[in-house]
Amino acid sequence: MLKGIEHVALAVHDLEEAIVDLESAWGLRVAARERVEDQGVEEAVLPLGGSSLQLIAPLNSGSTVARFLERRGEGLHHIALEVHDLRAALALLKERGVRLIDEEPRQGGRGHLVAFVHPDAGHGVLIELVQRSGSSAS
Amino acid sequence: MLKGIEHVALAVHDLEEAIVDLESAWGLRVAARERVEDQGVEEAVLPLGGSSLQLIAPLNSGSTVARFLERRGEGLHHIALEVHDLRAALALLKERGVRLIDEEPRQGGRGHLVAFVHPDAGHGVLIELVQRSGSSAS
Repeated sequence: MLKGIEHVALAVHDLEEAIVDLESAWGLRVAARERVEDQGVEEAVLPLGGSSLQLIAPLNSGSTVARFLERRGEGLHHIALEVHDLRAALALLKERGVRLIDEEPRQGGRGHLVAFVHPDAGHGVLIELVQRSGSSAS
Repeated sequence: MLKGIEHVALAVHDLEEAIVDLESAWGLRVAARERVEDQGVEEAVLPLGGSSLQLIAPLNSGSTVARFLERRGEGLHHIALEVHDLRAALALLKERGVRLIDEEPRQGGRGHLVAFVHPDAGHGVLIELVQRSGSSAS
């Protein structure tokens, strides 16, 4: 079902500051940047090997990421796992009794289809499933 | 400096239970298991694409992972980034003013050389640098 780690997401207060820090300390470079209104975040993607680090900062104080920052401070927010066929993966997980946040795929950043699995199902880890755009599962 | 994400580590209370959960829900399989006395943990590695998920459980109540679990509960603990040459990476990071926990490489699991970077330098994220065993930097 799983192809690999698509990205690891870090919640930060200030996107600009975090980008400068990651670029200057680690030599990473931002390859994509996007506001994902649906999730109330602005994100920046920094490729790393076959995967990426993703920085996410809240667009407003009501977003779940704003609440995360308030509660826990900056740090690891979620991991995104790539699947071939998101709809099939969600059906299989449901059949296995895994608690889902999204039972249907929805639109994520960069045109990808995404769905979130409940942290209860991942020993406290918020897991995002990603079917990359252009990776048709027909 | 960075080759990719070597693993993402999840802190759990009960290693056996977490292994069963990850194997049955996600179809992952444990490829290696080891007690790392130096870090006070028992770890299990579940390969995922070119990277891995790592489960870590405390060996005793004094370990840093036990304190993490007490403070934050189960969840994402650190990310490990692979480097070609750990000693060179540490020198470069130090030169760039990045706060390190380990200024010298030390022995990690699976024969790898590892060093930890302070979470202050990673916007709250504990970063482990890994030079895989057999990946000589000479």
